[in-house]
Amino acid sequence: MEPLCKLARLDCANEGVEGTPGGFANHRCFFSRGDHTYKVPLELHAQNRAKVVERVRATLTNGAGAVLVFRGGVSRERDDTDHEELFRQESYFQYLFGVKEPNWWGAIDVCTSEARLYAPKLPPAYAVWMGHIATLDALRERYGVDVAWTDGLATSLPPGGVALCMRGVNSDSGVDIADALPIEESLAMPSPELFVAIADCRAVKSAAELDLMRYVSYATSRAHVAVMRSTKPGDYEYQLEARFLGRIAEDHGCRNCAYTSICACGPNSAVLHYGHAGAPNDRRLAESDVALLDMGAEYHCYCSDVTCSFPVRGVFDDRQRAIHGGVLAAQRAVMGAMKPGVSWAAMHELAEATILDALVDAGVLVGKVEDMLACHLAAVFMPHGLGHLIGLDTHDVGGYLPGMPPRATRPGLGKLRTARVLQAGMALTVEPGIYFIPALIEPALQDARRHFFNLGRLDDFRGFGGVRLEDVVAVTTDGVVNLTLCPRTTDEIESVMAGGSWPPPTDTAPWLFRSWCTYDAQGVCRALDLPPTAF
Amino acid sequence: MEPLCKLARLDCANEGVEGTPGGFANHRCFFSRGDHTYKVPLELHAQNRAKVVERVRATLTNGAGAVLVFRGGVSRERDDTDHEELFRQESYFQYLFGVKEPNWWGAIDVCTSEARLYAPKLPPAYAVWMGHIATLDALRERYGVDVAWTDGLATSLPPGGVALCMRGVNSDSGVDIADALPIEESLAMPSPELFVAIADCRAVKSAAELDLMRYVSYATSRAHVAVMRSTKPGDYEYQLEARFLGRIAEDHGCRNCAYTSICACGPNSAVLHYGHAGAPNDRRLAESDVALLDMGAEYHCYCSDVTCSFPVRGVFDDRQRAIHGGVLAAQRAVMGAMKPGVSWAAMHELAEATILDALVDAGVLVGKVEDMLACHLAAVFMPHGLGHLIGLDTHDVGGYLPGMPPRATRPGLGKLRTARVLQAGMALTVEPGIYFIPALIEPALQDARRHFFNLGRLDDFRGFGGVRLEDVVAVTTDGVVNLTLCPRTTDEIESVMAGGSWPPPTDTAPWLFRSWCTYDAQGVCRALDLPPTAF
Repeated sequence: MEPLCKLARLDCANEGVEGTPGGFANHRCFFSRGDHTYKVPLELHAQNRAKVVERVRATLTNGAGAVLVFRGGVSRERDDTDHEELFRQESYFQYLFGVKEPNWWGAIDVCTSEARLYAPKLPPAYAVWMGHIATLDALRERYGVDVAWTDGLATSLPPGGVALCMRGVNSDSGVDIADALPIEESLAMPSPELFVAIADCRAVKSAAELDLMRYVSYATSRAHVAVMRSTKPGDYEYQLEARFLGRIAEDHGCRNCAYTSICACGPNSAVLHYGHAGAPNDRRLAESDVALLDMGAEYHCYCSDVTCSFPVRGVFDDRQRAIHGGVLAAQRAVMGAMKPGVSWAAMHELAEATILDALVDAGVLVGKVEDMLACHLAAVFMPHGLGHLIGLDTHDVGGYLPGMPPRATRPGLGKLRTARVLQAGMALTVEPGIYFIPALIEPALQDARRHFFNLGRLDDFRGFGGVRLEDVVAVTTDGVVNLTLCPRTTDEIESVMAGGSWPPPTDTAPWLFRSWCTYDAQGVCRALDLPPTAF
Repeated sequence: MEPLCKLARLDCANEGVEGTPGGFANHRCFFSRGDHTYKVPLELHAQNRAKVVERVRATLTNGAGAVLVFRGGVSRERDDTDHEELFRQESYFQYLFGVKEPNWWGAIDVCTSEARLYAPKLPPAYAVWMGHIATLDALRERYGVDVAWTDGLATSLPPGGVALCMRGVNSDSGVDIADALPIEESLAMPSPELFVAIADCRAVKSAAELDLMRYVSYATSRAHVAVMRSTKPGDYEYQLEARFLGRIAEDHGCRNCAYTSICACGPNSAVLHYGHAGAPNDRRLAESDVALLDMGAEYHCYCSDVTCSFPVRGVFDDRQRAIHGGVLAAQRAVMGAMKPGVSWAAMHELAEATILDALVDAGVLVGKVEDMLACHLAAVFMPHGLGHLIGLDTHDVGGYLPGMPPRATRPGLGKLRTARVLQAGMALTVEPGIYFIPALIEPALQDARRHFFNLGRLDDFRGFGGVRLEDVVAVTTDGVVNLTLCPRTTDEIESVMAGGSWPPPTDTAPWLFRSWCTYDAQGVCRALDLPPTAF
């Protein structure tokens, strides 16, 4: 087989397709789930590869002459059975190539910027059981790069040259990518520097990636609104999950969700990662419950992550209004302050201060907020981080890389999944919350922090649960743009739950930076500004 | 910790609950997803354990004094990320204990029949992130057996005694259970005999298991009917999948499906395992398409597996009528012949003969059916097995155990997942099909088999796809009972797609042995006979 370096780059054809989607003139390689869904230009991945090549050239001492080798995700069966789990591509491989099938490999030649994919050669029986067997030419057409069979991988690598593969630890899971995706040692040299380079590339999104992420958050927002409208006392939490998953799949072609849905009502809304197999969204909703629904779609492996909180009966009571107001104030403060150069850790601290203010206003806490901050009281009510990078993973990579601000150790702030300084193009969730968690409040009442509590008022919130409001935003050159379009103010929520239209005819919360609606000078909604290539 | 043998068996309490569900008087340990869903009496698992203990005593030379040790399913993250996949219990562990959480162990003392579960001790932070930490007493209450912490597992096993764990190969996947679930060697001795004993126990269902499986097939059937009614030209295949998943989850509490949905329309209906990530249900339905929808729910880890095939436009054309009629005739012939003592391989052959008859009637084939059978022509049109055992796995265990009829090697029959002789209590799918698969027909036209083909008529079926009809049945003492309730005759299908009621007011196909409806002497449906403890 011809060595990789000798092959010309195989571009997608540039003719014969109407429209100019995604800024890629007449490109004809797309991922799409039909006319009503977003057409992802696969040139997005070519851009990602170009960015990685440039970074490798600039930062890796052995990078300029290297070939980078990547192993795609592998198909898996459950336990010892033949139950094949629905395959979802490994995120780094998706970033670079956008391949939807399992068991591929990929290579990028840094010297020439050329890429090649390696597909498994399928046995003839595949045509009977699994579907049409594509030729190499058809696969080249599909992915817009050269494709060879995996059995030619070893011989196509330059003999004696440097072949690098990824080696590094995911800062959210603590798992080494080399452990999860073992690379045959004879093929490639594990490179921690390569891991850092690509993780950092992924942390800042391209325009094409943000267009795609807008679509995913649009699908997610629409499904959230449908669920919010449908919610009524007597429903089971898992029914809200079912409606969400149904809507993203049927209306928007999202076959996977980004993470297990958290449909936490009443006291469950104070359980941060509720919804797993041991707590499987099985409460029946009571009239007085808060519903906290944390649910996100995925499309072409890009994720959204959105939380709506609202009263099950459709109208806020005083307690709900007070807590919701505090959380929304924290979102407002943070979104108003976010811009390139700002520290994400500082944003977490801003949210903490805003939340404590609200708890003072609500009568739950008494005293000076600066004293509360000094003893980390905010982490009792918001033990998680303010938000995280998001992209191909819900908790996206690049949070704690060498040379960047390290993880703090104090309560709350230590849970932040990145402490980086914001850059234009970063996509993050902004998800402050206030929760009444017995396992955190009871210890606080046993030490010096008890002096801050108004115990009588605190009693009003026993069993209340919590409220979280979570939007996906992208950092722009001078602020943020909100990719989410969910009802956020109490008026918006009550209106939608009473059957009011959405998006709102008038934007009464422009400080949420929602990018979906075009409003005129009087603040009246003129148009829903969909992703450029969506329809 | 006290050795297992010394502990008295901890039964569930027998008071304080209304009704006598599942034949277990007033038992109060249930799995349920709310009032509108089936209440699975967890005594089902005690029965399973008792059956296994009896079998081990009777068949294992070292069984009488042994303790059996089982490792439950483990939680997993995707690749190197912290994306936690929704946990689903390992099937053998579910069979014996019905535990919904990951990372447990279990033990059964053969000498005393006593069981004990071992739960992981959860850190205090679990209460903040994952939910309430149950005490051992609460866990005992939940599962109706003694529970200890996993860190006491080693010391609680009888010192010097025989501790056996599973060792054996799943005949559908070829995977060794000891590979998938590594047992610490110091704890237990891998036992192929134990694997065979339990696999064989699982192959024959108890009344309680069949009640549960009726519910799962009821949920599956209802969702199939809803999808069939909703199908229209212009839909995408994945939208049918989305509707199915939505209905089983929302209406019946089935959070998981049994397998990736095959929503194959038009030519895709000739791809037997369509629907995976490489062929992801993304065709747009044409007016002239056949829809072949193979979709099943799962509840408490018990599976259903049902295929409906119907014309997208709601009315059969001549070709569709001919092929559908042949497949239904095969179902009828098989269901009419199934009873204890009958060989499943013989049933496969009966289906093959019936299908060939139909293809002769349709004018596709010419000649004598016995000559066609002699050269395995049926396997060109039905390359898969007639059906498989079903239970906790869609392709359930026990298909090819030592001492039982071995797997055949010839086309078609060799794909059968069991060649066992039927026993009362076995649950199987009956799923004949006729497909026009180019990858099989073209080679047949190149050899002696070409003489059987009427090429002119065959041309009519190019691009037709295929038809499969699949029901879940249970073998009774003298025949079968059909756990599925889907429209099967062309009249039933056309009526339902035109908005007619379901189940049918009059059962015109009593030979389908559908167990759901009670019909009077005139054949009029009088009642829908729901699972005894469903509502």
